[in-house]
Amino acid sequence: MFEFDDKPHDECGVFGIFAPGRQVARMTFFGLYALQHRGQESAGIVTSDGIVAHQHKGMGLVAQVFNEDNLAPLEGHLAIGHTRYSTTGSAKLRNAQPYLIETINGPLGVSHNGNLTNALDLRRQLLERGVGLSSTTDSEAITQILAAPPAIWGEAHNPQNGADIWVSRIRGLMRVAQGAYTLAILTRHAVYGVRDPLGLRPLCIGELDGGGHVIASESCALETIGAHYVREVEPGEIVRLDTSGITSIRGMIPERKRALCIFEFVYFARPDSRLDDAVVHEVRQQMGRRLAQEAPVEADAVIGVPDSATPHSIGYAAESGIVYTEGLTKNRYIGRTFIQPDDDLRQVGVQLKYNALTANLQGKRVIMIDDSIVRGNTCGPLVQLLREAGASEVHVRVASPPVRHPCFMGIDMATYNELIASNMDIEGIRQHIGADSLYYLSLPGMVGAVQEVVGGDQGYCNACFSGTYPIDIPEWLFEEDRSKLFFEGVWGT
Amino acid sequence: MFEFDDKPHDECGVFGIFAPGRQVARMTFFGLYALQHRGQESAGIVTSDGIVAHQHKGMGLVAQVFNEDNLAPLEGHLAIGHTRYSTTGSAKLRNAQPYLIETINGPLGVSHNGNLTNALDLRRQLLERGVGLSSTTDSEAITQILAAPPAIWGEAHNPQNGADIWVSRIRGLMRVAQGAYTLAILTRHAVYGVRDPLGLRPLCIGELDGGGHVIASESCALETIGAHYVREVEPGEIVRLDTSGITSIRGMIPERKRALCIFEFVYFARPDSRLDDAVVHEVRQQMGRRLAQEAPVEADAVIGVPDSATPHSIGYAAESGIVYTEGLTKNRYIGRTFIQPDDDLRQVGVQLKYNALTANLQGKRVIMIDDSIVRGNTCGPLVQLLREAGASEVHVRVASPPVRHPCFMGIDMATYNELIASNMDIEGIRQHIGADSLYYLSLPGMVGAVQEVVGGDQGYCNACFSGTYPIDIPEWLFEEDRSKLFFEGVWGT
Amino acid sequence: MFEFDDKPHDECGVFGIFAPGRQVARMTFFGLYALQHRGQESAGIVTSDGIVAHQHKGMGLVAQVFNEDNLAPLEGHLAIGHTRYSTTGSAKLRNAQPYLIETINGPLGVSHNGNLTNALDLRRQLLERGVGLSSTTDSEAITQILAAPPAIWGEAHNPQNGADIWVSRIRGLMRVAQGAYTLAILTRHAVYGVRDPLGLRPLCIGELDGGGHVIASESCALETIGAHYVREVEPGEIVRLDTSGITSIRGMIPERKRALCIFEFVYFARPDSRLDDAVVHEVRQQMGRRLAQEAPVEADAVIGVPDSATPHSIGYAAESGIVYTEGLTKNRYIGRTFIQPDDDLRQVGVQLKYNALTANLQGKRVIMIDDSIVRGNTCGPLVQLLREAGASEVHVRVASPPVRHPCFMGIDMATYNELIASNMDIEGIRQHIGADSLYYLSLPGMVGAVQEVVGGDQGYCNACFSGTYPIDIPEWLFEEDRSKLFFEGVWGT
Amino acid sequence: MFEFDDKPHDECGVFGIFAPGRQVARMTFFGLYALQHRGQESAGIVTSDGIVAHQHKGMGLVAQVFNEDNLAPLEGHLAIGHTRYSTTGSAKLRNAQPYLIETINGPLGVSHNGNLTNALDLRRQLLERGVGLSSTTDSEAITQILAAPPAIWGEAHNPQNGADIWVSRIRGLMRVAQGAYTLAILTRHAVYGVRDPLGLRPLCIGELDGGGHVIASESCALETIGAHYVREVEPGEIVRLDTSGITSIRGMIPERKRALCIFEFVYFARPDSRLDDAVVHEVRQQMGRRLAQEAPVEADAVIGVPDSATPHSIGYAAESGIVYTEGLTKNRYIGRTFIQPDDDLRQVGVQLKYNALTANLQGKRVIMIDDSIVRGNTCGPLVQLLREAGASEVHVRVASPPVRHPCFMGIDMATYNELIASNMDIEGIRQHIGADSLYYLSLPGMVGAVQEVVGGDQGYCNACFSGTYPIDIPEWLFEEDRSKLFFEGVWGT
Repeated sequence: MFEFDDKPHDECGVFGIFAPGRQVARMTFFGLYALQHRGQESAGIVTSDGIVAHQHKGMGLVAQVFNEDNLAPLEGHLAIGHTRYSTTGSAKLRNAQPYLIETINGPLGVSHNGNLTNALDLRRQLLERGVGLSSTTDSEAITQILAAPPAIWGEAHNPQNGADIWVSRIRGLMRVAQGAYTLAILTRHAVYGVRDPLGLRPLCIGELDGGGHVIASESCALETIGAHYVREVEPGEIVRLDTSGITSIRGMIPERKRALCIFEFVYFARPDSRLDDAVVHEVRQQMGRRLAQEAPVEADAVIGVPDSATPHSIGYAAESGIVYTEGLTKNRYIGRTFIQPDDDLRQVGVQLKYNALTANLQGKRVIMIDDSIVRGNTCGPLVQLLREAGASEVHVRVASPPVRHPCFMGIDMATYNELIASNMDIEGIRQHIGADSLYYLSLPGMVGAVQEVVGGDQGYCNACFSGTYPIDIPEWLFEEDRSKLFFEGVWGT
Repeated sequence: MFEFDDKPHDECGVFGIFAPGRQVARMTFFGLYALQHRGQESAGIVTSDGIVAHQHKGMGLVAQVFNEDNLAPLEGHLAIGHTRYSTTGSAKLRNAQPYLIETINGPLGVSHNGNLTNALDLRRQLLERGVGLSSTTDSEAITQILAAPPAIWGEAHNPQNGADIWVSRIRGLMRVAQGAYTLAILTRHAVYGVRDPLGLRPLCIGELDGGGHVIASESCALETIGAHYVREVEPGEIVRLDTSGITSIRGMIPERKRALCIFEFVYFARPDSRLDDAVVHEVRQQMGRRLAQEAPVEADAVIGVPDSATPHSIGYAAESGIVYTEGLTKNRYIGRTFIQPDDDLRQVGVQLKYNALTANLQGKRVIMIDDSIVRGNTCGPLVQLLREAGASEVHVRVASPPVRHPCFMGIDMATYNELIASNMDIEGIRQHIGADSLYYLSLPGMVGAVQEVVGGDQGYCNACFSGTYPIDIPEWLFEEDRSKLFFEGVWGT
Repeated sequence: MFEFDDKPHDECGVFGIFAPGRQVARMTFFGLYALQHRGQESAGIVTSDGIVAHQHKGMGLVAQVFNEDNLAPLEGHLAIGHTRYSTTGSAKLRNAQPYLIETINGPLGVSHNGNLTNALDLRRQLLERGVGLSSTTDSEAITQILAAPPAIWGEAHNPQNGADIWVSRIRGLMRVAQGAYTLAILTRHAVYGVRDPLGLRPLCIGELDGGGHVIASESCALETIGAHYVREVEPGEIVRLDTSGITSIRGMIPERKRALCIFEFVYFARPDSRLDDAVVHEVRQQMGRRLAQEAPVEADAVIGVPDSATPHSIGYAAESGIVYTEGLTKNRYIGRTFIQPDDDLRQVGVQLKYNALTANLQGKRVIMIDDSIVRGNTCGPLVQLLREAGASEVHVRVASPPVRHPCFMGIDMATYNELIASNMDIEGIRQHIGADSLYYLSLPGMVGAVQEVVGGDQGYCNACFSGTYPIDIPEWLFEEDRSKLFFEGVWGT
Repeated sequence: MFEFDDKPHDECGVFGIFAPGRQVARMTFFGLYALQHRGQESAGIVTSDGIVAHQHKGMGLVAQVFNEDNLAPLEGHLAIGHTRYSTTGSAKLRNAQPYLIETINGPLGVSHNGNLTNALDLRRQLLERGVGLSSTTDSEAITQILAAPPAIWGEAHNPQNGADIWVSRIRGLMRVAQGAYTLAILTRHAVYGVRDPLGLRPLCIGELDGGGHVIASESCALETIGAHYVREVEPGEIVRLDTSGITSIRGMIPERKRALCIFEFVYFARPDSRLDDAVVHEVRQQMGRRLAQEAPVEADAVIGVPDSATPHSIGYAAESGIVYTEGLTKNRYIGRTFIQPDDDLRQVGVQLKYNALTANLQGKRVIMIDDSIVRGNTCGPLVQLLREAGASEVHVRVASPPVRHPCFMGIDMATYNELIASNMDIEGIRQHIGADSLYYLSLPGMVGAVQEVVGGDQGYCNACFSGTYPIDIPEWLFEEDRSKLFFEGVWGT
């Protein structure tokens, strides 16, 4: 598979809905459609009609996986959905989500976004209990943990009279799971939204006119189906969507400060989504403004690396007073191709995907804004492209700090080796990419930009920039080979 | 799905091979190809290379499911395979076998032929232990039971030094499983063949020239790949195929007499297969001979309902001295079609599948042999067809007794309602089908025919004819609705 | 593709129906289903509703190509269908039939069975006229010839008042086409059946209760859908099916004697089909009887090579008084597989497909009947198989003469090289196959058998046996390489 | 199929390459990938190795249709490709291009962009000549015309000694074809590029380092594969790509002024493509600037309807001095879905695709730029969306004049009825969409913008804006029903 891209990849988008009288599978389809940017490898929907659960999932984009024929049997009044990006080669149907299993308390469907840092431990515990696992994912481990009597995982076995057995189970899971997990869970009668106590991955709640509620990884999915944004699910919180509407339940008291992945603001989330009550686009503009303050340079035009760096560029342009324009175009029919360029075409390089807009560059001093640099394979060729198109100077400004540390909470940058800023200093990178100047937004600058828009410090994970992880990471994960192992999943021990 | 057929359906064919230096997936393919008559709904192969297991399965005939592209990755030196007929509508990929899961002791693959009578109990026990189940089959229950520490199922937890952990687990399974199960099991280093203590479904062993062993539901699969027939796996026996060759292990001491399904002799097995050291074709001829002795009739020609009743007919003709000929032809491109005949075509009836050979029938008194009558929907139209083709008399002889009782050990005749002989007496059936005379082979006659060829009474289940079940059947299974439920599988309780 | 088979292959089955008020696409489906033995590579249906034509075709068996979804849009009250075997590697969708084109007189659909000996000439004439061809088949040439003004092909341009323009065109085609062609043609308002003046390939007419008519390659397709056999289409005849019922039109006055392919009686046709008012099964029995008269031998059992030689064997047994039994079984789930046996499996040989029934062979002198021997690759291994199963003697009797000459009229035996009887004498073949004795039915014997059943000499092509071709064959076709070229079709000259 | 979109659709992208020593199919793949915006319904490639032609085509996006398996057999050193949008429902494989046929002079492949206004006449002439047509497209008519002796179409039959027979045929085609046709033609030894004498659709030439040439609908495809832009193909010109490099041949002397579709500048072409030696992005900026001059308004922000109106918006912002920002986001995973919104979701409307960026709109007077308005179904809901997001005023500015007339040269707006500006005056539209003000760029403004950037009047078709067609349009095409017929194609008369 060929991708000319220097972006990290998130692992998933999750969605849940409880809406009697509505076509919940269809609404989930459109919700997933809005979350497509969070994963393009597989998609799936599980519904419940109060007795039986129905399921369809497949490989590919949401619009490829579903058609009217396979949507029709997904009956019911509650549903969850999932769209997945796999961090590794294990792009197989058996890893597609949601998972659906039968438990002693009826059907259980699970959609998961995030990565557990103790996934191998949990898998081993399950295997030792004699539970066979049919995939290589931590998400299946989560599902099987939820299927077990909560006492096994240290939770009171019998919920008090009338209490919700599923809440006990989810609490049992939260007791043992380490790392990032945002979940949409479907049972026979209810949908649950769960966010890990660090709140590493986002999840928000929406309300439908005429009744019914929705949860989604990002608020853009709410707006797409006409739901009103209510609020975010809190770190450690469980919300239940059922006939009583929305019920908030304490899942776990967070022991540490919230640590929402700040990369959601930098790159992952759709610019029109709302995080911490701020629209992401606005935060990105503010990052651009801070970048302009920190690293001004005399120039004739500000351009962004399309499409993701446009908001940052608009902010930079506004703050610097230098005109914003487009200097690069990208083939808008993105979508992975499995055709490999041959050697000659490989020399063509970034032009397979990007073209320069000569008229806007000719003889100009250009500031090229990127939202982030991870592996550093794209930036240099783009600088070269701009120069060939006539740019007299190319100043690269990156709207986030250097990515120097691997992530183990769900983003596919798992080793020091692959990170350019972990292996070169800034001046080295500048020479490597051939820019006239290079500047990364400072960590305080990035964090400050977020805080200015959201209003205060709500707590963010910036481990990939700072090396300060919000949870203890097992030593072995930092070793090159073991971490690969971790990401690929393995058959047993 | 449209089938004009009055035959019961078996549930599966299983296959296993351990043969270093040979292409085991390819050999499994040809083995399954030979077992295709035991199930046409789905097919699958799992291999092990000693470290990792590989898998491919899909819906359809063996030749449709596999091609060189999906066969190539199935590397290794041991393999199991499966071909499936589903007794119900749940023809879904997630029910296709073999199952492959990861356990604390490495990969575990399971191919199952048969039906457990206490499947729902076992599923409930698994669910209560907190094991989530993702299909509706008893075969998944078997797989998850094998994944668990054997102590859970009442077996000594720690096998003695050097003992085989898998043997303990299989024994644990045999302790709790009731009903029919012939299994081919794959672990990282060995293939196991298992037969329930009643020996309800067949399983035999073959040896390859140049090393390596094979197990298969029927011996025809051995011959197809050039393996020599060694012997049958005994009821309650476990055989292990590994670098030490074939090892026989006592799985369970049978408490009751062996009860091989006698319908294997009547209809299921391929005529060239060997059961109880007798070739099935010879047994069927003997049934025909006994039938000629019990129910002679003056006539001009003996014909069989193609293709299954040909051996019985040859036997009847030989014994009676009446000439054997073909009187009916059947479209040899069998294969299910999903196109439904409309009302007009439905009136055409059996002719959609059978034609009469007028020249052989014109003005003749014809004896039409069928191997069995289950629902009774085909026999009448065939008699009618023969008469229209000019037969002056049609005498129907059935080479097995009336099917009066449901089967719960793996054959898809689960309720009294659907069995014509349970709802009508012989004279009633004769009138119903419009024959000049009708005779079913007696139970002693059928059993005697088998004994004469195999040499003595090796013990057979003839519950569908006699009502005498070899194991205790739970009362509720005899109730119409519940037995359907049993066959369809259900989501939990 | 792997096939262990020594049978020639026909090229196609054709079907046509005109039946207002009936579901003609569905009926065509079941008709093609009955003709499946004439071609398993692709299948297709074209319907007309009197205004517009509808079409679906695909690769594979009839039951694989069609489902309720793609059958539903095939509306109308007249239809044609086709099932195809390709003589060469060009198994591609663009060669699938029926062809459907638009002409100045509305839609034109064509189903063709046979092979034109002057196909390359006709293709060249079309290309020279400036008609581009998109496939490599003679059938497309036929279709484009029918699309042209008949004057171009030497037929009076303007049919007389009220005359049928399509009849003129079909006559134009008949004027120029050399070789074998049985056609089912669909226009906006009528279905036409056409048979070449030699009548090389069969075609018959059926009538439906309640109105409507049918044409089909073989009568078995009529019976399958409940139509009554009326008669065969005559050599050189055109029949039109429309609102006036069946109309017979002289297409061309045959200049030579009829020459129906006698191999239809030997092997191609379904045994229950009717040719020349005789049931094929009866003719085959008669061939067996003649064979017993010509080549008696003392023996204990008569067996046939399944499934095709069963009727001949029954005849041989009846005539000789030696008991008929089954000695070989064949996997009844025929269907091509694309999985190749490896070298070890290739050694297993015929056992991949056939097994011997030891009990019927042990210590016995066996007569093995085959309907024909073409390449001679299967017979020897079968003799060997019988010996290994204990046969004390094996006498091979073939119910047709040695195949010594290639066929250019639609059967895939195109070169002298591939025919064993063209390269070895009988004694050489006997030694080659290892039989105790070998005898082929004489040409007079075979022809006599046919005549005795059908009642007189209706005229048959037996060129592959006799070397006497019913039409002039261009010299170059007998050259090895050119005849291959002919069968594969070529791009232009 | 559901699309929330008010854009016209072009019909195709074409591509051709002659490059010995290069992997021409792979390069065509990447070329088509760059032209994907010109058609997303089907894609195809035809190659020639100098003897035989190879072909693969299918429904869907380029990246969906091709994989390494189907690309590999496309051998050769010259190729053409096609990507198609169908203006009507006839989205069927048989209409996919390139067409490939065999002619008397060898294989002929044709890729076509445009629409012939006399397609029905040409089809009728072909049908009258007796050429059967198997699709409903004018492109097949073009292909069959090229297959015929040129004399038939009024061209000298025998090209002079050594002259190119294909040039005669192309000239014959140009003599009879009316309307828009840009062609990439493949023969055994050469690729031809052809542009109709009006030059209605674009086509340009590129050169590869190391030898070989390319033609493509847009220059972005050249850059994607590393080819250098040489020049455009002239109206009426034929260019031949073969071992002699590029040869220019007069196809037809244009009798009228060039008439390149001006909508290519407004919307169709990729902004980084070069037309008339100007980069499209620059022309669009200039349109935005002219719009700012013609229709200034006091406001706080300029936003564009994403993604197509961004360049115009940047131009408007630059000229007006009002800050450019993003006010709307669009799901970047475009791609058609076949899932229909239900009634409730339909009420949600544009939000299924667009979201408003509240932070950039709140309390602001907003100028929303769109490149064009055709049916007018999207603009109103977007205005509403902006208001709900807090915009205090919404001024709509359209960077092209009102679309008032249908197009018959390849754009899918074929009837007056569907064009809002043909049925309402500007004030009516303003009220309809609920804008505070509405202004369309004047025709002189739009044309002037183009001329300023390209440098002079090169001749454009602006019939959809002005009603002045560059060729005579048959009267009947303006009738509602007949024009639909024209676009859908029909079976004969």
